[in-house]
Amino acid sequence: MHSFQEMPNLYGVILAGGWGASLWPLSRLLHPPSLLHLPGCGEGRSLIQETVARVLTRIPPHRIILVAPREQELEIRRHLELLGPGLSREITILAEPVDRNTAPAIAWAAQVLARKDPQALMAVFPGNQLLARPQYLWEALAAAYPVAQEGFLVALGITPGGPETVYGLIRQGPPLGAASGSMQVYRIEGFGEKPDPDTASGLAQGGYCWNSGIFLWQASSFLEALGRWRPQLLKNLTRMGLEAGASPPPGDYGRLENISVDQAVMEPHDRGAVISLPGDVGWHDLSTWQAVWEAAPKDQDGNYAAGEVLYADCRGSLVLATHRLVAGLGLEDLIVVETGDALLVAPRQQAHQLAKLTEPLKAQDAEVYRLPRTVFRPWGTFTVLEEGPGYKIKRIEVYPQGRLSLQFHHRRSENWIAVSGQAQVTRGEEVFVLQPQASTFIPREMPHRLENPGTAPAVIIEVQHGDYLGEDDIVRLEDVYGRLI
Amino acid sequence: MHSFQEMPNLYGVILAGGWGASLWPLSRLLHPPSLLHLPGCGEGRSLIQETVARVLTRIPPHRIILVAPREQELEIRRHLELLGPGLSREITILAEPVDRNTAPAIAWAAQVLARKDPQALMAVFPGNQLLARPQYLWEALAAAYPVAQEGFLVALGITPGGPETVYGLIRQGPPLGAASGSMQVYRIEGFGEKPDPDTASGLAQGGYCWNSGIFLWQASSFLEALGRWRPQLLKNLTRMGLEAGASPPPGDYGRLENISVDQAVMEPHDRGAVISLPGDVGWHDLSTWQAVWEAAPKDQDGNYAAGEVLYADCRGSLVLATHRLVAGLGLEDLIVVETGDALLVAPRQQAHQLAKLTEPLKAQDAEVYRLPRTVFRPWGTFTVLEEGPGYKIKRIEVYPQGRLSLQFHHRRSENWIAVSGQAQVTRGEEVFVLQPQASTFIPREMPHRLENPGTAPAVIIEVQHGDYLGEDDIVRLEDVYGRLI
Repeated sequence: MHSFQEMPNLYGVILAGGWGASLWPLSRLLHPPSLLHLPGCGEGRSLIQETVARVLTRIPPHRIILVAPREQELEIRRHLELLGPGLSREITILAEPVDRNTAPAIAWAAQVLARKDPQALMAVFPGNQLLARPQYLWEALAAAYPVAQEGFLVALGITPGGPETVYGLIRQGPPLGAASGSMQVYRIEGFGEKPDPDTASGLAQGGYCWNSGIFLWQASSFLEALGRWRPQLLKNLTRMGLEAGASPPPGDYGRLENISVDQAVMEPHDRGAVISLPGDVGWHDLSTWQAVWEAAPKDQDGNYAAGEVLYADCRGSLVLATHRLVAGLGLEDLIVVETGDALLVAPRQQAHQLAKLTEPLKAQDAEVYRLPRTVFRPWGTFTVLEEGPGYKIKRIEVYPQGRLSLQFHHRRSENWIAVSGQAQVTRGEEVFVLQPQASTFIPREMPHRLENPGTAPAVIIEVQHGDYLGEDDIVRLEDVYGRLI
Repeated sequence: MHSFQEMPNLYGVILAGGWGASLWPLSRLLHPPSLLHLPGCGEGRSLIQETVARVLTRIPPHRIILVAPREQELEIRRHLELLGPGLSREITILAEPVDRNTAPAIAWAAQVLARKDPQALMAVFPGNQLLARPQYLWEALAAAYPVAQEGFLVALGITPGGPETVYGLIRQGPPLGAASGSMQVYRIEGFGEKPDPDTASGLAQGGYCWNSGIFLWQASSFLEALGRWRPQLLKNLTRMGLEAGASPPPGDYGRLENISVDQAVMEPHDRGAVISLPGDVGWHDLSTWQAVWEAAPKDQDGNYAAGEVLYADCRGSLVLATHRLVAGLGLEDLIVVETGDALLVAPRQQAHQLAKLTEPLKAQDAEVYRLPRTVFRPWGTFTVLEEGPGYKIKRIEVYPQGRLSLQFHHRRSENWIAVSGQAQVTRGEEVFVLQPQASTFIPREMPHRLENPGTAPAVIIEVQHGDYLGEDDIVRLEDVYGRLI
């Protein structure tokens, strides 16, 4: 058995962002589950911080790659810095311009690694999972290491606990190599889709495990397999010649096939292997509200509540309040998630069918599907407090040293009222500090900028007036974050 | 049988306000169900407008009395004016300074009527009921008229449709007088409390009806009965010598016994009579969310939704959204009510146990229990949009010709930003009109006033700053609505 000190070629690849709204309305298309602070995460950590912290216990930051949507890159860097100062520089971030599912994301990381270290073995981790007892993970990876070195693509499985029809199944074949302690690698006989209920109830008889989404393989073996099963994908990717710090053009990247690594490689491939973690390892893939409930620390009636929640006679329910009082009476196995602009109510058992609600929102390109109520920008955040006929009110928080673009609007004017901190205002030719309680007016077409030269956050209230108040009425003249295009 | 043209002594007494939060969080202690626009109300009407409109079909406004909490008087007058200009002057309003339940409210109205017309018969109507086929009501009242003239206190019953354990039961005795068409008055043998489930399931066998809360009696007979069963209550009330337009001191009125008319008079009295409306008369007492669901027009799956609601696979549910998107998946027989500051989720069948949630809020004197998010004042409304450390943001709407008090605050300053309409500002010695998009600053201790000389509502956004931002930090120097104390 290998210890990690003996695995110098091991790299960690974390699928950090994610596009999608699987935990809507808390997560949004551009604010994925990995950025959320969820029950089960330690010490006020987000899920991505939790994941990175876990990987960092065995793999140093300079051998970690995060693949993330470009739109979330700055926010993810902020989470990394909060986890450990300097981490956002030490860890390599590959920023995807558009969502192409996991196969292109992993392939890009594999190319970067194979170029850097031809012997590189990469352990792939989804960024939205919890693992209560990670020592089993490291034991399994150590046991799988020699098999991966032989060129196998190794999946980490989870031993089924009970019938569950949400995750994909892996059917085990004959053992591969010697057992390492209680852990044994098997060949994969079938790398499957969601099981039907009959298969699911027969799982306890063995021979199957869940696909955890965690993998171990040589970067070169993976690229070889990809070239065999998805040659066009590999060719298009190679043609882009992406370096680690590259910023792929959305058009080129968007032409890569939109496909999961499961479908693209693991299902057709004949040199797959699997090693299972025990069922009680405390693994939770937080991609459904049911999973969040399972992972949450619950009271004796099976309830978990966070925020301003009042409840009576409830059982087996998850109630999250972010903005106001949520009162529940007699709830049974229900999910209630309240945010500033949307609310979800659904039985836990149907939470995996959330797409029935989010698909119509996606089809309308609804803001409530795309953006969180508090929108994260490189310079800080803004929150729409209220919209009415002809006006919109925002709370704007500028991080210390944050600097909005120099901009103007064609169709709206703005009043700014300083609440706290030091808000420095550029207004046409003037530059001045808006002291708390002071206000200023920005007419239409007037170039203006807000920045925070101080060391505490600056908060202002903005009241917009106009006949059109969309976020896209913005002309950026100058921007320290390169957002002029 | 009498027609109403032949009942010149008939008066209508409407219990208009109500203190309490039986439809919390839509209703609040100071914003009762009768002020709500509920499903089942016609043409954008509130429940009190619906009730007054029904009574007005048979009783002219000068013979109608509304008893209402003083704090709701102006808002109720506004609802009356919207129903018919002039109604708020023609209808008499008795304004209670504190809540003493229905016996004192009805007794006050009875005294006013007995003094005005010794032959007065009063029909008492709760202000929170719907009645789809009111012709049965008027037929029943006509049939009961001669019995009431003989001195009986007549209750209107509802023929039970199925087992229901929410309303009080009346047990019928022998018939009184001749039947009028299909309607028969009976003596009351038992005027009861909520039935146990066994009684409830035997109801279809007859001899029982529900207490609708509607009554008919001579004002003098009622006062006589009250003097017999609750002499102290009558004595205390008489001592106050209240005229119709009187404004009883809260201390004196508060010393009246806090008791329902059912308990105070109907239960002990031996000259009670009852006449039942058919079960399919479309009577709904909207004092529980279950009743609101029953009264609402539902889709084929038994759902009623209002506001921005998205749902899939739901059955038998009531979903009301007032401020943002509510998304429901797989809901079964559930009540979901969303307001700007509180949210309720409960099974319909448990909706009558709402007190399990509201009692703790009441005990804390929580604002979310007492006040609606939009607070109604004589001059207009205000809505708290957001509170944060050191600031609070309100949307203020001043009705045309509305005028806030001349006031100042010890501990907060205020920024005002005009959004629409004509906001006239008094600021120390200055008086000026704040045009839309303009702003002004009111320092602490500076006397100020807001008024609307225009004909359209004036909307301003107020940002308060200070270490204490409670509603009670207000010193009124001058007020057209007499609120200086």
